[in-house]
Amino acid sequence: MDEATTRTLTPTRLADRAAADRAALDALLDEVLVAHVGFTSSEGPLVLPIGFARDGDRLILHGSTGSRWLRVLASGVEVCATVTTLEGIKVARSAFESGMRYRSACVFGQCTVLTGAAAEGALEVFTDRVLPGRTAEIRRSTPRELAATLVLALPITQWSYKSSDGFPEDPAEDLAGDAWAGAVPLRTTHGRPIPAPDLRAGIEVPDSVRRLTEPGPSQNRPQSGPDRVGDGSNSVQG
Amino acid sequence: MDEATTRTLTPTRLADRAAADRAALDALLDEVLVAHVGFTSSEGPLVLPIGFARDGDRLILHGSTGSRWLRVLASGVEVCATVTTLEGIKVARSAFESGMRYRSACVFGQCTVLTGAAAEGALEVFTDRVLPGRTAEIRRSTPRELAATLVLALPITQWSYKSSDGFPEDPAEDLAGDAWAGAVPLRTTHGRPIPAPDLRAGIEVPDSVRRLTEPGPSQNRPQSGPDRVGDGSNSVQG
Repeated sequence: MDEATTRTLTPTRLADRAAADRAALDALLDEVLVAHVGFTSSEGPLVLPIGFARDGDRLILHGSTGSRWLRVLASGVEVCATVTTLEGIKVARSAFESGMRYRSACVFGQCTVLTGAAAEGALEVFTDRVLPGRTAEIRRSTPRELAATLVLALPITQWSYKSSDGFPEDPAEDLAGDAWAGAVPLRTTHGRPIPAPDLRAGIEVPDSVRRLTEPGPSQNRPQSGPDRVGDGSNSVQG
Repeated sequence: MDEATTRTLTPTRLADRAAADRAALDALLDEVLVAHVGFTSSEGPLVLPIGFARDGDRLILHGSTGSRWLRVLASGVEVCATVTTLEGIKVARSAFESGMRYRSACVFGQCTVLTGAAAEGALEVFTDRVLPGRTAEIRRSTPRELAATLVLALPITQWSYKSSDGFPEDPAEDLAGDAWAGAVPLRTTHGRPIPAPDLRAGIEVPDSVRRLTEPGPSQNRPQSGPDRVGDGSNSVQG
């Protein structure tokens, strides 16, 4: 998990592989709700967790116009937005071979500021990303709310992707020993919706929330995916 | 989630509050398995997901000596290690007031390299952090494995902590409307352990793994905590 994250783009000589990698990137970006956005501030490096949504070939970020650091992002500084999901623990027969199942990506670039209808549309993409269908259930944002919101777009042009799946790869001498080896999946689930204390009586849980929390195929999986039993090609410590 | 993360230390004039905040920081650091570690590389800002463990007043990071970026961290560059857990979605009556339940902290500073017995001890802390009791179940690391591992310590001296809990705070005109409001908790759980395909017959799941995955009070909660129904004081978008 600590190795070899570089700016290298997927080799174009392997077009199918490249397409598969972009699909893998998009699947990750569409699953995780928070990016860790790093940049070099006047006080040194800073990494902020920011909710995001993928909108085609860009990431949408937003926040308050009162946020000092969001304004720095809006100024066009270089950023690295890293998105990670931890999917399990690889338990090896030694500490050295133990590690994590994960997927992670970095998107590199500069944010641009969206305004007007573009900003409003991007915020709707974000709202429906977190809770699909929510935009249709609530009122439109007011001009005052939109004016208080800074909406940024980060293009998905330079990125890297890395994952580790499967099981530890212990050396032969450890295979012969008595220690257990395997994997412990980690899974994130939505709990039962909790009504706000100030909710008026008689207002039912809306479809957007019900769809998210009811069992069944989900369009909006939270941070961890299903159990993945792959080929264990990447043995990563840490 | 995007606002006001600063290097400001907790006010010392409020000693109880400061102690509580450090306890909150430690609780977060002891719960989340991966830090997003940002620094300024020769190619721009970079944010890497790295497994970590808190060891008293420092974070332990490690990885392969072959990792270019880990060697950069070892060189003493300024870093910001951000640790975040997403605990739920705040569903407001408007997009503007909607947000996340989360806890997040940044630890700022420079890593130092641990060697010899200090490195070996720190790796054991890490192993037992991910899987409490695991060190006692497996062989010791070999000199060759230790030589291939770079172990870093980041002191917990400069840090910030931020959280958002509770429910959205909608304005009066929205409270009177028909939209639902509340929260959807997110919870991370350990799935059932999966034996490695190359596990020899007759080796049972060890105590460390059983304790992690069996129901009951856990000493090592994964990324999300229990439902938290707080006072909703921080309304954060995104």
